Amino acid sequence: MAPKYKLIYFDVTALGEPIRFLLNYGQLDFEDKRVGVDGVEWSPIKPTTPFGQLPLLEHDGKVAHQSTAISRYIAKQIKLVGSNDWEDLEIDAAVDTINDLRAKIAAYHYENDPAVKETRKQPLFKEILPFYLEKLEAQVEKNNGYLAAGKLTWADLFFVGLLQYFQFMLGKDLVENSPNLQKLKEKVLALPNIKACIDKRPKTNF
Amino acid sequence: MAPKYKLIYFDVTALGEPIRFLLNYGQLDFEDKRVGVDGVEWSPIKPTTPFGQLPLLEHDGKVAHQSTAISRYIAKQIKLVGSNDWEDLEIDAAVDTINDLRAKIAAYHYENDPAVKETRKQPLFKEILPFYLEKLEAQVEKNNGYLAAGKLTWADLFFVGLLQYFQFMLGKDLVENSPNLQKLKEKVLALPNIKACIDKRPKTNF
Repeated sequence: MAPKYKLIYFDVTALGEPIRFLLNYGQLDFEDKRVGVDGVEWSPIKPTTPFGQLPLLEHDGKVAHQSTAISRYIAKQIKLVGSNDWEDLEIDAAVDTINDLRAKIAAYHYENDPAVKETRKQPLFKEILPFYLEKLEAQVEKNNGYLAAGKLTWADLFFVGLLQYFQFMLGKDLVENSPNLQKLKEKVLALPNIKACIDKRPKTNF
Repeated sequence: MAPKYKLIYFDVTALGEPIRFLLNYGQLDFEDKRVGVDGVEWSPIKPTTPFGQLPLLEHDGKVAHQSTAISRYIAKQIKLVGSNDWEDLEIDAAVDTINDLRAKIAAYHYENDPAVKETRKQPLFKEILPFYLEKLEAQVEKNNGYLAAGKLTWADLFFVGLLQYFQFMLGKDLVENSPNLQKLKEKVLALPNIKACIDKRPKTNF
């Protein structure tokens, strides 16, 4: 029988890894389809996708896109959500904040003009990262060691799933000097189903 | 008795308007607190906010941030969500796509360096906008005149609520040459509770 879900993403961690973490955490039956980053396999697939992007999630003959929306959907299937609408709001806000941070890191990393990139370096490393890290440290302190709702939720797997990508873009571990975030990272990576999926995942640059 | 909800945002449409649309559509009791855009009132408030940003939603002595997360929360309270988890995934994906488009428009509009801004103009107006508009036109066609789930959902109010802001950033109406999106806009703006809230809202630049 075909797996219940099929995740289609590039052969890297990045935006696919939070979804892989969630599928593995909940032990959902899925095919981890990895498209080569050289573009050979991707070129003919790209025009057939909803908005020219991956990841995609296939299920019951239907196709969905957008990594955060897919992550939230999987989280509901494996009950890694809040206990009420307000807790889900807190979780969603944490995830949107992580995505804001990702956009700011990406605006630096993916800048092609070396001069423009240089002007973004100081603000990112000296202002933006310290600001977010201080706020996130306090948030984890207040939430019993997690990002939201005082317990393990999909926001935590989403965040930790992105850390290898952040490390690639920044050239250093985002959370190395943030003890609460470091502990959260270690806690998530030590979850047996997450540890197992990392141990067997392909080695990729990011 | 104090209103049930308090929305705190700047005295503009932008990221606050989708939330105002949703609160008004559902006739929820709320205070529409508007902070002046000159910064005088905002400066002392900014450091007290979760991540230095508005909007905020206050409810039952609690405070939440992030405009998309707040919109989703309000949508649940007024039942403008999907009928099942997959429909909610489609709605969330539509909203995330609108936010992707917003980020691309903002990267052009808010660029301070005139030379850099000029290099972004042609790709935005000749490639990015036509690409998104063609995809969104087809999506609305397929969804019975709406963005997702074949019916009116919070994705539609979210999108139409942002259109005045998009017009401000682009210098033209995003949907003027997209008949399906134009019809969707007119349909949402004609909803009695939305029409009433627009008729009485403060006149602002965007």
